[in-house]
Amino acid sequence: MNKGIKIATIGGGSSYTPELVEGFIKRYDELPVRELWLVDIEAGKEKLEIVGNLAKRMIEKAGLPIEVHLTLDRKEALKDADFVTTQFRVGLLDARAKDERIPLSHGVLGQETNGPGGLFKGLRTIPVILDIVKDMKELCPDAWLINFTNPAGMVTEAVLRYTDHKKIVGLCNVPIGIEMGVAKLLDVDHSRIRIDFAGLNHMVYGLDVYLDGVSVKERVIELLSNPENSSFVKNIEGQGWEAEFIRALNVLTCPYHLYYYKSDEMLEKEMKNFKEGKTRAEVVKKLEEELFELYKDSNLSIKPPQLEERGGAYYSDAAVRLISSIYNDKRDIQPVNTINNGAIASIPYGSAVEVSCVITKEGPKPIINGDLPVAVRGLVQQIKSFERVAAEAAVTGNYDTALLAMTINPLVPSDKVGKVILDEMLEAHKEHLPQFFQTTEV
Amino acid sequence: MNKGIKIATIGGGSSYTPELVEGFIKRYDELPVRELWLVDIEAGKEKLEIVGNLAKRMIEKAGLPIEVHLTLDRKEALKDADFVTTQFRVGLLDARAKDERIPLSHGVLGQETNGPGGLFKGLRTIPVILDIVKDMKELCPDAWLINFTNPAGMVTEAVLRYTDHKKIVGLCNVPIGIEMGVAKLLDVDHSRIRIDFAGLNHMVYGLDVYLDGVSVKERVIELLSNPENSSFVKNIEGQGWEAEFIRALNVLTCPYHLYYYKSDEMLEKEMKNFKEGKTRAEVVKKLEEELFELYKDSNLSIKPPQLEERGGAYYSDAAVRLISSIYNDKRDIQPVNTINNGAIASIPYGSAVEVSCVITKEGPKPIINGDLPVAVRGLVQQIKSFERVAAEAAVTGNYDTALLAMTINPLVPSDKVGKVILDEMLEAHKEHLPQFFQTTEV
Amino acid sequence: MNKGIKIATIGGGSSYTPELVEGFIKRYDELPVRELWLVDIEAGKEKLEIVGNLAKRMIEKAGLPIEVHLTLDRKEALKDADFVTTQFRVGLLDARAKDERIPLSHGVLGQETNGPGGLFKGLRTIPVILDIVKDMKELCPDAWLINFTNPAGMVTEAVLRYTDHKKIVGLCNVPIGIEMGVAKLLDVDHSRIRIDFAGLNHMVYGLDVYLDGVSVKERVIELLSNPENSSFVKNIEGQGWEAEFIRALNVLTCPYHLYYYKSDEMLEKEMKNFKEGKTRAEVVKKLEEELFELYKDSNLSIKPPQLEERGGAYYSDAAVRLISSIYNDKRDIQPVNTINNGAIASIPYGSAVEVSCVITKEGPKPIINGDLPVAVRGLVQQIKSFERVAAEAAVTGNYDTALLAMTINPLVPSDKVGKVILDEMLEAHKEHLPQFFQTTEV
Amino acid sequence: MNKGIKIATIGGGSSYTPELVEGFIKRYDELPVRELWLVDIEAGKEKLEIVGNLAKRMIEKAGLPIEVHLTLDRKEALKDADFVTTQFRVGLLDARAKDERIPLSHGVLGQETNGPGGLFKGLRTIPVILDIVKDMKELCPDAWLINFTNPAGMVTEAVLRYTDHKKIVGLCNVPIGIEMGVAKLLDVDHSRIRIDFAGLNHMVYGLDVYLDGVSVKERVIELLSNPENSSFVKNIEGQGWEAEFIRALNVLTCPYHLYYYKSDEMLEKEMKNFKEGKTRAEVVKKLEEELFELYKDSNLSIKPPQLEERGGAYYSDAAVRLISSIYNDKRDIQPVNTINNGAIASIPYGSAVEVSCVITKEGPKPIINGDLPVAVRGLVQQIKSFERVAAEAAVTGNYDTALLAMTINPLVPSDKVGKVILDEMLEAHKEHLPQFFQTTEV
Repeated sequence: MNKGIKIATIGGGSSYTPELVEGFIKRYDELPVRELWLVDIEAGKEKLEIVGNLAKRMIEKAGLPIEVHLTLDRKEALKDADFVTTQFRVGLLDARAKDERIPLSHGVLGQETNGPGGLFKGLRTIPVILDIVKDMKELCPDAWLINFTNPAGMVTEAVLRYTDHKKIVGLCNVPIGIEMGVAKLLDVDHSRIRIDFAGLNHMVYGLDVYLDGVSVKERVIELLSNPENSSFVKNIEGQGWEAEFIRALNVLTCPYHLYYYKSDEMLEKEMKNFKEGKTRAEVVKKLEEELFELYKDSNLSIKPPQLEERGGAYYSDAAVRLISSIYNDKRDIQPVNTINNGAIASIPYGSAVEVSCVITKEGPKPIINGDLPVAVRGLVQQIKSFERVAAEAAVTGNYDTALLAMTINPLVPSDKVGKVILDEMLEAHKEHLPQFFQTTEV
Repeated sequence: MNKGIKIATIGGGSSYTPELVEGFIKRYDELPVRELWLVDIEAGKEKLEIVGNLAKRMIEKAGLPIEVHLTLDRKEALKDADFVTTQFRVGLLDARAKDERIPLSHGVLGQETNGPGGLFKGLRTIPVILDIVKDMKELCPDAWLINFTNPAGMVTEAVLRYTDHKKIVGLCNVPIGIEMGVAKLLDVDHSRIRIDFAGLNHMVYGLDVYLDGVSVKERVIELLSNPENSSFVKNIEGQGWEAEFIRALNVLTCPYHLYYYKSDEMLEKEMKNFKEGKTRAEVVKKLEEELFELYKDSNLSIKPPQLEERGGAYYSDAAVRLISSIYNDKRDIQPVNTINNGAIASIPYGSAVEVSCVITKEGPKPIINGDLPVAVRGLVQQIKSFERVAAEAAVTGNYDTALLAMTINPLVPSDKVGKVILDEMLEAHKEHLPQFFQTTEV
Repeated sequence: MNKGIKIATIGGGSSYTPELVEGFIKRYDELPVRELWLVDIEAGKEKLEIVGNLAKRMIEKAGLPIEVHLTLDRKEALKDADFVTTQFRVGLLDARAKDERIPLSHGVLGQETNGPGGLFKGLRTIPVILDIVKDMKELCPDAWLINFTNPAGMVTEAVLRYTDHKKIVGLCNVPIGIEMGVAKLLDVDHSRIRIDFAGLNHMVYGLDVYLDGVSVKERVIELLSNPENSSFVKNIEGQGWEAEFIRALNVLTCPYHLYYYKSDEMLEKEMKNFKEGKTRAEVVKKLEEELFELYKDSNLSIKPPQLEERGGAYYSDAAVRLISSIYNDKRDIQPVNTINNGAIASIPYGSAVEVSCVITKEGPKPIINGDLPVAVRGLVQQIKSFERVAAEAAVTGNYDTALLAMTINPLVPSDKVGKVILDEMLEAHKEHLPQFFQTTEV
Repeated sequence: MNKGIKIATIGGGSSYTPELVEGFIKRYDELPVRELWLVDIEAGKEKLEIVGNLAKRMIEKAGLPIEVHLTLDRKEALKDADFVTTQFRVGLLDARAKDERIPLSHGVLGQETNGPGGLFKGLRTIPVILDIVKDMKELCPDAWLINFTNPAGMVTEAVLRYTDHKKIVGLCNVPIGIEMGVAKLLDVDHSRIRIDFAGLNHMVYGLDVYLDGVSVKERVIELLSNPENSSFVKNIEGQGWEAEFIRALNVLTCPYHLYYYKSDEMLEKEMKNFKEGKTRAEVVKKLEEELFELYKDSNLSIKPPQLEERGGAYYSDAAVRLISSIYNDKRDIQPVNTINNGAIASIPYGSAVEVSCVITKEGPKPIINGDLPVAVRGLVQQIKSFERVAAEAAVTGNYDTALLAMTINPLVPSDKVGKVILDEMLEAHKEHLPQFFQTTEV
């Protein structure tokens, strides 16, 4: 690696890319990136160029010798890459809108990661990821795949179960958001806070929280039992837990827990958005359009502050921090999605979990914090079952398996409603789900 | 045991007792019961006498030397008993009506075993059971406790976790009902069918089903995917699964699965009953009144056929069959609730599970059928988490723990609604929940 | 199966065959064998004919319509078989003599199942078994493979790990011998004794022992702490345990435990035999010669009583009892080698264990008795590690793996001595170990 | 802790103390020790004063404001301590000599940690450690117990199993010695090497080894298969592994593995020492006498270089590094003995393991490296079984349990020989084993 690092970013035309570029600039001293390849597909060509040019201006302004390449040829980008990052969206935000709106039209939460929406995002995404991994085996077998693409847990599970490429890390900004939220709550610098995270992607708990190495969990939970303090990340509006509930739960929750412990309030809120045409996808689509207008401005050569409203806050930190820790064998502790191997006793050994890890040059190694509390094991196991069945459906294209995944999802109230939603969504996403519509001739 | 067997039946005034007595009569040859002690509390005295006298007439008619004793003194009954059966209902059917109606009044399913209703049934029942076990340790330490009292899984869990009396078996008529339903479906005699059961009480799955020792699971599942065939037991109206769902699930379900895989249909149905004053408790109460009218008839000296409509069908068979198998070291296979010890890999070693067991004189020993299918592990684990937290709340009387149990129940849509229901139910059941209302002075 | 049962016995020329035939005759009423195919290889032709003719005479005398076929064509025998039994010995007793004598010549116990001798027996046997399984997949995929060939644990492990044929049961006469020994010790009929067996083949423990369903373990262990009572089976001379040791161990041992808990006494005894040319193989060879002389006698039409001295006592009972229990779905409890699936918590899920099972038409299902006592887990795990590494060496023919298996065996005192023995044995058994000597050309 | 750190060192009169003091001096900047309390018993008073005065001179020379207190009053020393270190030897080196010589007199290796000698060292040490922990609960409940006293694995197991004080770390210089040995082998600086350690104390394996974050295991194992390179630590003479064996084992071993994989060579060597009066205890006793002569020299104010020959090399580094990492929440990776919690799948959840941990202010947290290789699981489990049974014997003083521990030890050839050794050692160590000789009156 003495010639500098090659990064390939699949979905390079994403609105997130400026954050990533900012991260590489900020840490250039410790992470000497030589080439950054932004890859996208034909349909994303225009966005790729807008974002790519912004990236070039940002790097030029920083005065760094990072080459930015824009390409539609994935193989060229992957060739000899050191790290591959994935942040693409099959079907773009229109597909996400369907993921959210179709379930809501039947009175069911869509939830783009662990709900029916997440199921379809997984069905569209997993075959593409497995295809990328296949290319990597050929073109850059030693590269790390850093996946930001949601549903990150399901995608990591699929790669671990259905390929022999174990160098994958699923990354999410939720845990780092919780840490920053706690720091803010305690009015201390983020660096003084550390949380023992354990669970699954978007279903992660903070088993303990430390300030300068001393547990302050009790104090934090007391603060969280005050409804005003419960908002951790921007993209899911905070709703206070019942004080007695969170005290008895006795672990930190993540914003996505609202879908399970406050299902009806969440449904009510999203039904309102649905009726007003303001589901998250619709809001984000508007935000993105505005962002791309900003990105087009050839005078802009920094990440525009508006991007933080997009929901991707802390991404640059999380992503580039991870790559740098691997590259530099930093052995710091970060929460990521990786293979369980016993870190959480009640989850299968070979499954993906989101857990605090030591990040070494050999990759993330989970640290042990004992098993999950009894009270949360059930829900965590339920989402893991959903992820595994969904991953199987994504790989096989089997209709029955897809209905099974849909029905065992805790947000779906019945097999009958599940089937209605499934059929409608399969039809709506038809072009991105070839595995379900291929005709096989014998 | 050469002097014959002594049975103590706690809750002897139950309408089920004639079934039990019928069972003892039918199997007297292999199970020589000498004394049957029917115990009840002051409030149940009248019923005890009605049922007790019927029991005496039944035995007289059968011409058997079984002594029937009616008593309000539990200790007298337990003294030197060989088997203790429990079939009582703290607060009687009025309490059950509250278990069902209060949640429904907030649009939530009550479900008297694994739902909010079951939580309160557990909170009322577990302290009484632990008290009985305490008496048993003193008066009949080697006796088996055969518990029919619901929620049987939660009760068994509590005894296993909070006492050192391991000679407890939780019994339920659901599995035997499924076997008989399958036999009927295939139009064969019940004795030719065997099912590998695994799961929890009222959350049990049939992993495989055999006709004369040959698997016919595929055929049975095909039949079950026909909505007309899905009704297994009388007390929960059958509703057909979506064919693709049950095929992909690929295991037999129990009627209580309707609450989780068809939540909205079940809610709709029960809301209708609620509005019409026809919840199960209300229906059963009427049935019981009619039954006790029948029981009073001094000409009646058999179990009246109307009892089968009560929902207790197959009970006599299940209960007395179990006692006889233990007594006679029969080593036959029966599904019961017992300690897991590895029978289901994804459930904690020391927890109660409902699983096919070989019944020996040393008690039931689970047989291994491999782990649960991935698709059902989550729901099973979730109910197990609920049972364990609920058992803890029952023992400690801790409000926060009770709210936690309520909120993690899959039928409860939010901590807020859970708290409303919890508060209302605590108040309604106040007299039977001393552990939550004791004032401790220091 | 209405046309009667077809049995294929690989190694049909074995001296054990008359026991098997006796078993089939004794149980013909419940197990209507139509065809018994005795298969052997060219080198065993003469023995096959001697034994086969005795078998025919025995059946004729019994007046049963069982056809006995003698053949050197394995495929013909396997075609449509219902049960396949294996009782062959690659390299015959001369090979066993080498298994015993070569280690002893270096002052190391040979031990033909779990020692260096067992390693080589496994290396010779496993490829042949895997070949038989391959044929079975083609010719009788639904047949059960009942393996008596030692080392039965290693062979079962190999079939479970390296094939997808799960219908294999490893059978051993040691547990039934222990039960009969205990019955004798207590002076009661064998049918009144039941033992909870758990462990590995030739490394099995009796966790509890019941007389008429009541635990008598304490009494039996007290009796066993008397040296005079410690001899359970004929082919390993009894040597009394130290009373305090067996009391603290608090489980029943099997005769093969002498190799581990009395290594020096066993070594001393076998060194004496070695020097006198009286190792077990040499003794057995003589016995066998005498047996075959008897078998030749055309007036003989029963199993000669001398066979019991051979060490195969109770075999007919164990083997035919097992086949009959499967065929008739008897659901009785028998100790056999099968897949663990959680029966013993500290042994891998997919490994072979020897454990009490319910025998159903679907095969043996382990019953749960909790985990092994702490004190024995280590030794059991050590033999399991040995079995797994040995099985891998047998399949791969890798020299280093074979040396690893040799060295981790608890009877082998060092890697250096292990290598000397390995090299000498590889050379001695060369003709039966093609996997180690094949030259591969590319 | 703003007033500086208080350290209490039990067994302060040990010859190792100057290393510890050197360590505190070297790291004073990051680890501001205010008080160092050296505690010993009456019998060790003279040594305590000699060592204590050297410690004072060392600190004076370094010009640091560390107060050194010498005391025979353990409670005074423990009061409000931040860290408690234990490095005492019940019965001194004379007891160790018996641990080694008595087994050898019967032709059995003594092995002062995992052999019969270790059993007796544990029997003498564990009650004292449990007593210290009892005092700590009262006087310094938040202090960390850093135990160097052997057998460190058995001692840690005993504290984890028999107390509720979980703040214990067992420390050993073997892993750091292996790392330094590998660094030397590769001719690189120690800081560039990291090894994934997993196993038990004195039974630890290096699952992988990294140079600058890249695995060099294959290269290191190749080097180790050369006999000249196999000597890792000074106090056990290196003996080369058979190349094929270590290649197939495919993990790094520790010097104590020689006792199991080269039992006969080790026995031969130690028998020679035994006969010449040069067992390790005897050699060390002489070394210690020389060391104390040096320590007495009032001109000496540094750790004398001769101490390195004592076998305690790297101790100051290991011990003070650990304390500093906890105190400063360093989150670096160090191999220590701590609770397993799933780090090694095949070892019980609550047992002590020696495994690479991240050292945080909350203590060591194991990092996950997957399970142990199949080939080593057996031996590791066997030593764990030995440790647990030995710990039980130490706590209960039960003779039978002690004989069980002795007999299941892999170095002991039979229950009979084990009993002879046990009886002789119990007698020899009588004064330090009150739990085995107390007469209880009722």
